[in-house]
Amino acid sequence: MKKLLLLLICCQALAQVQKTEPPFWYAGMKNPRLQLMFYGESIGQYVVAVSDHVPITDVTRTGNPNYLFVTIDTKNISKATTLTFSFSEKKKTVFTVKYELRAREKNAALRKGFDASDVVYLIMPDRFANGNPANDNTPATIEKADRSNPSGRHGGDIKGIIDHLDYIQSTGATTVWNTPLCEDNDPRGSYHGYAQSDVYNIDPRYGTNADYLQLSSELHKRNMKLVLDYVTNHWGSEHWMIKDLPTYDWIHQFPGYGQSNYRMTTQFDPNHSENDKKFCVDGWFVKTMPDLNQSNPLVLNYLIQNAIWWIEYANLDGFRVDTYSYCDKEGISKWTKAITDEYPYFNIVGEVWMHDQAQMAYWQKDSKIGAIQNYNSYLPSVMDFTLHDAISSVFNEDKPSWDKGIIKVYENFVNDFLYPNPNSILVFAENHDTQRISHWYPDLNKYKLAMTLIATIRGIPQLYYGSEIGMEGNKDKGDGDIRHDFPGGWTGDENNAFSATGRTETQKQYFDFTSKLFNWRKNKTVIHNGKTMQFLPEDNVYVYFRYNDAESVMVVINNSDAQKTFGTARFNEAIRNFKTGKDVLTDADFDLGQPMTVDAKTALILELK
Amino acid sequence: MKKLLLLLICCQALAQVQKTEPPFWYAGMKNPRLQLMFYGESIGQYVVAVSDHVPITDVTRTGNPNYLFVTIDTKNISKATTLTFSFSEKKKTVFTVKYELRAREKNAALRKGFDASDVVYLIMPDRFANGNPANDNTPATIEKADRSNPSGRHGGDIKGIIDHLDYIQSTGATTVWNTPLCEDNDPRGSYHGYAQSDVYNIDPRYGTNADYLQLSSELHKRNMKLVLDYVTNHWGSEHWMIKDLPTYDWIHQFPGYGQSNYRMTTQFDPNHSENDKKFCVDGWFVKTMPDLNQSNPLVLNYLIQNAIWWIEYANLDGFRVDTYSYCDKEGISKWTKAITDEYPYFNIVGEVWMHDQAQMAYWQKDSKIGAIQNYNSYLPSVMDFTLHDAISSVFNEDKPSWDKGIIKVYENFVNDFLYPNPNSILVFAENHDTQRISHWYPDLNKYKLAMTLIATIRGIPQLYYGSEIGMEGNKDKGDGDIRHDFPGGWTGDENNAFSATGRTETQKQYFDFTSKLFNWRKNKTVIHNGKTMQFLPEDNVYVYFRYNDAESVMVVINNSDAQKTFGTARFNEAIRNFKTGKDVLTDADFDLGQPMTVDAKTALILELK
Repeated sequence: MKKLLLLLICCQALAQVQKTEPPFWYAGMKNPRLQLMFYGESIGQYVVAVSDHVPITDVTRTGNPNYLFVTIDTKNISKATTLTFSFSEKKKTVFTVKYELRAREKNAALRKGFDASDVVYLIMPDRFANGNPANDNTPATIEKADRSNPSGRHGGDIKGIIDHLDYIQSTGATTVWNTPLCEDNDPRGSYHGYAQSDVYNIDPRYGTNADYLQLSSELHKRNMKLVLDYVTNHWGSEHWMIKDLPTYDWIHQFPGYGQSNYRMTTQFDPNHSENDKKFCVDGWFVKTMPDLNQSNPLVLNYLIQNAIWWIEYANLDGFRVDTYSYCDKEGISKWTKAITDEYPYFNIVGEVWMHDQAQMAYWQKDSKIGAIQNYNSYLPSVMDFTLHDAISSVFNEDKPSWDKGIIKVYENFVNDFLYPNPNSILVFAENHDTQRISHWYPDLNKYKLAMTLIATIRGIPQLYYGSEIGMEGNKDKGDGDIRHDFPGGWTGDENNAFSATGRTETQKQYFDFTSKLFNWRKNKTVIHNGKTMQFLPEDNVYVYFRYNDAESVMVVINNSDAQKTFGTARFNEAIRNFKTGKDVLTDADFDLGQPMTVDAKTALILELK
Repeated sequence: MKKLLLLLICCQALAQVQKTEPPFWYAGMKNPRLQLMFYGESIGQYVVAVSDHVPITDVTRTGNPNYLFVTIDTKNISKATTLTFSFSEKKKTVFTVKYELRAREKNAALRKGFDASDVVYLIMPDRFANGNPANDNTPATIEKADRSNPSGRHGGDIKGIIDHLDYIQSTGATTVWNTPLCEDNDPRGSYHGYAQSDVYNIDPRYGTNADYLQLSSELHKRNMKLVLDYVTNHWGSEHWMIKDLPTYDWIHQFPGYGQSNYRMTTQFDPNHSENDKKFCVDGWFVKTMPDLNQSNPLVLNYLIQNAIWWIEYANLDGFRVDTYSYCDKEGISKWTKAITDEYPYFNIVGEVWMHDQAQMAYWQKDSKIGAIQNYNSYLPSVMDFTLHDAISSVFNEDKPSWDKGIIKVYENFVNDFLYPNPNSILVFAENHDTQRISHWYPDLNKYKLAMTLIATIRGIPQLYYGSEIGMEGNKDKGDGDIRHDFPGGWTGDENNAFSATGRTETQKQYFDFTSKLFNWRKNKTVIHNGKTMQFLPEDNVYVYFRYNDAESVMVVINNSDAQKTFGTARFNEAIRNFKTGKDVLTDADFDLGQPMTVDAKTALILELK
């Protein structure tokens, strides 16, 4: 009889509670408050209670009766516990819901995020490798695989990444950042994953949550790291909550659709109009991406808990946050602070795509620039888009002038004092939103200059899948063209660039260089955390040193189209007592007391002895 | 007998003391310390004493026996007093020197410098008007007049400026800044005045010190202001002290000549090499301009006292400081602080020619950017070179894109939060070192757009002589070509643009517009100190408001090459309750509730009612 009653209650619970989010949680979090969202038809009508003497500190009902937000205080729960939530009406329990608080991994809070000792390898999972063709199409997802469509689903998946971790590791990368893997059920263009329809579940075309945990575990076995691409700014219009909004202001409405003007400068322009700022921050990125309202505490808390859940669940080493500076500025700061309060050594790199170092620096944690407006984002890392701007043209500028040529790279670093932490900036030549570097420079030598820079300057280098084999693409033809399938990732691919023997001669040249460079970097602490001294370029030749008390690496980038010979006396303060330098790339020895000759469009990386 | 003795002593004094600098001083200065420099053959051998119980607090002898630096404390001298300095040897007075402490003008310390209520008119005196052809050549100066030489002396002078103050005032200008007038005895190119050979005396080809005082007095009679162009960074190689250096390190020596690399970013680049910074700061601007060592306290004090002397003597309203950011950074800060400590409401605008707002803002007084490196320049004003960068191209960009067109002007102001005082920035379309605006825009309509911007945006507008008549010139042909003689300034000039009847039809169109615009500005406090609200340009049309509680001016700049019509709803937060706007330039009325139509390449300045 008791069993039958339980069964009846459970069935009723299933009917009543369609979703509980987060689906489970952890005992012993620094922030003991947990706000559970119960979703089910007219669930808002019930009175809720919880077992184990756990205090309920807040119950919030919204205009939509299908939601109930219940905040509990878990501070007295130190070990794995299953709570029971009772939902009652007229003092009679109608149904109950079991809720699991799991035990945390040891030192989960002290996890150390990716940093300048790492090299990040950015993957678009749909375009990398199709490890499991059986999940290319699923009943639950609308868009079907069509490899002939540049904007379509091609079938790449998590298994494809796991299968090629040897390859990824062989590039010298230590960290994988993949574009979002959660469900994106957009009918079109869903492959990029930024229009998420369920932020607690991996898209079945990529695999399962378990597959993602396996990816994490396989990476950690290799002492590699995993970065999740988090999207705070928007969800996809197919998100189940968008279709039944908890509150009218869960998303920004104008009413209805208003498009962002993308002018992030309105976030700090002291002369801005509120209307312009509203359209920047509240406007939607595109029509299929409803803009989340991070200034609504329910939304903010939902995003904070979802993010923390993934860190704990998938044992993450970092976030990359999409469109960071489009978010409500105060909201995203609270989000970032909540996460870094919980995980003080975790890393989060925000996409702050601006073209001015002061504007970029504004968004880094403890920024003195942000502080001018009493703003602190708490964001540990930003991306060096101004360096990227320079990289986009500099290696084609053979003839230098006051502001042309390699001076543009030098000038990027003169403003490093604006950043609270210049060594925590992601440096990159390309990513999934930019032009392919091979389009600017269809030339191995220029690629080598760019990669040498990325690998040796301050900050965290980031590669984009395919860079290392000279993958072609042209953003002017559309985003699909900079997101080609990695050759060898699909059964039947004629060219298999994953394998040394499968590479074309050109791919081999690119790969061997890249692999040598970034593998050399792996154990070079002087590159990871040394100081920088840069010298004014002369004649389009740029020289800088990465150094500490014991070691020094001298980098020479001859960006001229002619061989250059120059004396070393003006570098004496950096050369100190070192006598010779061995080029990491060619093993050639250089006498630091003699004039140095460097071929056209050639870089040296000299370990000084 | 007594008289004879006195005469003998005086003769000896004349023989012994060739120069005393400052030549006189003032009683009642806030800083009571005065360091006198006595110059004469072997003067360093004497023991010095002074009358009136004035304490001598320091006597400094340098390696050069011809100099004696004597510091006295004047704090007990409250009125005009003539001191007597006695120079003795073996306890016997060998000669004496009279030294005058003059009474200050009432409220001299509280003089109010030029500010955003002013319009600065920049003149190259040699090229403006030759008021006194008798002083075109003088026995004391090497270079002779040659009007056919673009780099030669043309004969313009102070009397030429005084004679045309009606004209200058009629442009709407309120303040005259002239390039340096002190003696520049370079054999060639001395007309620009930046290679000064005597910083206490007006170049005789410009007139006398008395003429300069008359210029000041005539300006003040008109409620106009005078700004002196001060050069802290260097002197000319013909300076008498350069030819007999007080100390080896009075100037920077390498030894001998080292040329600046002009990379002012080494002043704050945290990764800079000391060698690069040394060549920037200590290097000479050109061979004829020995670089002063402001970190030598004698040099620094000499420059401070010389500057204060001119303020007090010529009753100045401001300095423009040449090559400010090439100076020793700490030295120039001390110089600026010493002057603004003495005159807290005085204005000093420094030439900080950089291309990045954060780098510019670094140099403004109380900068939060400078504070990152614990630096405070104390400089009240900088020049808006980044706006100038935008102005140099924007009005030719008819077709807008993400980063082209009038957005470049808008973007200049988004970073205003970096400046401690954005309203104390000099805004200009051209100066004596830049391309002539007429070369970029040989087109009255585009000139009008540039001037409308300069006249109505925050900051202190600055005109360059000739702008207002569309004067032509091309810097690519050399500096002389952007410094043509003002037509009508020389007897016999066929074209006399100083006079309404003498102007060509084109000159009249330029002048009438400029004069109307800047005369309108004179009493517009809402422009002088109102707030700014700017709206994102749409379709190459830029709209901003200058406003306070009572008033509002709406500026519309249609930078497109087509007529534009647009609704006003998005400006509602700035339009507030105003109903109509009257165009200052055409008197046309606009109904703010209706769509607005603006012709191609046309600006409106609407006073809202």
